[in-house]
Amino acid sequence: MKRIGVVDTTFARFDMAKSAVSRLKEMGTGFRIIRRTVPGIKDLPVECKILIEEEKCDIVMALGMPGGKEIDRMCAHEASTGIIRAQLMTNTHIIEVFVHEDEASDENILGELARSRSADHAENVYWLLFDRKRLEKRAGTGRRQGYGSVGAIGG
Amino acid sequence: MKRIGVVDTTFARFDMAKSAVSRLKEMGTGFRIIRRTVPGIKDLPVECKILIEEEKCDIVMALGMPGGKEIDRMCAHEASTGIIRAQLMTNTHIIEVFVHEDEASDENILGELARSRSADHAENVYWLLFDRKRLEKRAGTGRRQGYGSVGAIGG
Amino acid sequence: MKRIGVVDTTFARFDMAKSAVSRLKEMGTGFRIIRRTVPGIKDLPVECKILIEEEKCDIVMALGMPGGKEIDRMCAHEASTGIIRAQLMTNTHIIEVFVHEDEASDENILGELARSRSADHAENVYWLLFDRKRLEKRAGTGRRQGYGSVGAIGG
Amino acid sequence: MKRIGVVDTTFARFDMAKSAVSRLKEMGTGFRIIRRTVPGIKDLPVECKILIEEEKCDIVMALGMPGGKEIDRMCAHEASTGIIRAQLMTNTHIIEVFVHEDEASDENILGELARSRSADHAENVYWLLFDRKRLEKRAGTGRRQGYGSVGAIGG
Amino acid sequence: MKRIGVVDTTFARFDMAKSAVSRLKEMGTGFRIIRRTVPGIKDLPVECKILIEEEKCDIVMALGMPGGKEIDRMCAHEASTGIIRAQLMTNTHIIEVFVHEDEASDENILGELARSRSADHAENVYWLLFDRKRLEKRAGTGRRQGYGSVGAIGG
Repeated sequence: MKRIGVVDTTFARFDMAKSAVSRLKEMGTGFRIIRRTVPGIKDLPVECKILIEEEKCDIVMALGMPGGKEIDRMCAHEASTGIIRAQLMTNTHIIEVFVHEDEASDENILGELARSRSADHAENVYWLLFDRKRLEKRAGTGRRQGYGSVGAIGG
Repeated sequence: MKRIGVVDTTFARFDMAKSAVSRLKEMGTGFRIIRRTVPGIKDLPVECKILIEEEKCDIVMALGMPGGKEIDRMCAHEASTGIIRAQLMTNTHIIEVFVHEDEASDENILGELARSRSADHAENVYWLLFDRKRLEKRAGTGRRQGYGSVGAIGG
Repeated sequence: MKRIGVVDTTFARFDMAKSAVSRLKEMGTGFRIIRRTVPGIKDLPVECKILIEEEKCDIVMALGMPGGKEIDRMCAHEASTGIIRAQLMTNTHIIEVFVHEDEASDENILGELARSRSADHAENVYWLLFDRKRLEKRAGTGRRQGYGSVGAIGG
Repeated sequence: MKRIGVVDTTFARFDMAKSAVSRLKEMGTGFRIIRRTVPGIKDLPVECKILIEEEKCDIVMALGMPGGKEIDRMCAHEASTGIIRAQLMTNTHIIEVFVHEDEASDENILGELARSRSADHAENVYWLLFDRKRLEKRAGTGRRQGYGSVGAIGG
Repeated sequence: MKRIGVVDTTFARFDMAKSAVSRLKEMGTGFRIIRRTVPGIKDLPVECKILIEEEKCDIVMALGMPGGKEIDRMCAHEASTGIIRAQLMTNTHIIEVFVHEDEASDENILGELARSRSADHAENVYWLLFDRKRLEKRAGTGRRQGYGSVGAIGG
């Protein structure tokens, strides 16, 4: 039985974890989900690392919705740098799913983007754990999460 | 008995620690507070790490008020990066509470923001230590500290 | 028998790994290739480190095609920083081969650039493993990968 | 007997160490000073760490004067990031004292700023080692080094 | 007998290592030089660390010529950050000698700058190993490498 960590924030304006967990369950079985919530995206790196080291998670999803201002972009950069560092300290994948508030001007489109990106990345998480061949077949094919995929050049 | 570290700076123009400690005491009991003051925000990361490793703090609040110039934003970025690194080295949460001087043009509003953000984050600290379920119920609900919360999309 | 890791992404729009592997095989023998695919460039650092530490790779190629927006450049910066960190944690070279979407306005030129840069860097990988003298002879000679080399000043 | 490291650069245009050491000696006794000089600010982080680990310094001052161009600001950022990392690796404070060439248009004012900031930070160093209560009393009071302090909001 | 590592790149357009080694030999004896070449500046950090840890170098020179575009500046920043990290992991100085393509509009001036900066930094390397007093006498005297020194303020 594999263990999948799912961490989200109280700052986000959409229940991304619900969408991710729902898709994970559609993908298959053989795993248990460990949920955690932290205040903001800068609190994600250490929470993910704790899930890996103390809760023995085999992979973690880090979900967040950075604001649309310059300072929010810097926060997201700091969080991302920490998430990569946490992976390197543990030799474990942490799939970052960030939806930036300025990716859509309409609130409902933003919500839909948060929903679909969380779900699409849940597929990546499942494949990383259980079906690496599926990812290899998709190598270089221009996949996007939340938006429609753009496809391979000349494809 | 849990131990909560609270570190602030002589650079800040408001006694954020007082506000944080006051709210912490309103939240409940079962913890002891360890106070420290350093010159500026770049001195926060190592002081937080010392509190965790040498004073056995279970969580730390890092309080600061970066100036409003470009160079101050870079200082804040360096401090934040260090605070995240300190967390990853200790598997312990450090809640950063920064109020940027250019978040308000009026000095009194800035002071009020520093007061309320410190207090609001003290609640997060208490919940991280004693009541994780409270954070999970708030997942994806657009919480803000210091400003009014924006709420969930469509909420 | 040396082991060369080759990691690419499903985000990229060109099969860079195919081009790299093809050139590696033209260069000589004495190595085995270990392929891996991850979703995006931010997932490269940890996968490279796993290949080095768990699959005993002697060198790794990290292949990716960052998008052309400001946020994509930040992603590439975070990935690059992580790739350098992974090298320092393992004392092993990871050759990063990134083709930025805005390096060419024409899609076919972009594909050709991805093909040739991957192949050119495969030569570097081979020389780093088997023929360091070849690199030393080229020191300071203005080599470029994917584009024509510019040559030494006054050369 | 405590040990205070003082590291400066040949790049700086003012003898900041002289000013820092002079003020340290005015503050009291009970410490010995270990001096070092490196070429530029990017050489400071490792020299500070060596002073802590190999010369058993209890605290270090890192003194430098970054140039006024964009590339100099990046150098200062890299040096600062390294100084924070060095602190986290040693659980020891390193007080960074940087005077940026573009902080003053007049050369003499710049020199005076370098002198006074070095001296003011020497006080912080002394208090961090011998009198933490002095810093705690100044918490949130808007202290500045080199410039006049701005004071607490409403103070 | 001390060991000095000298690492350069095939990307650079000038044989900086030749200039550095030549000046080192003029400075004195008592050291052996270990040469290495890597493709680009992002490959420098790990090569320097390998020279320190596996070839027992006492100090290393990292020579490179970043391009003049925004993305090249980011590469240089990533390389510099890695070089500082490598120093902190080994308690050993790595003297970075970078000449940015946009430091001179004329190719020949750029070549001369690369030559003289490499040589001038070779002096720093020699003094760091064999004559620290020489650096201390130059503290705060506005030394520059490659360009004429600017001197101390009021000096």
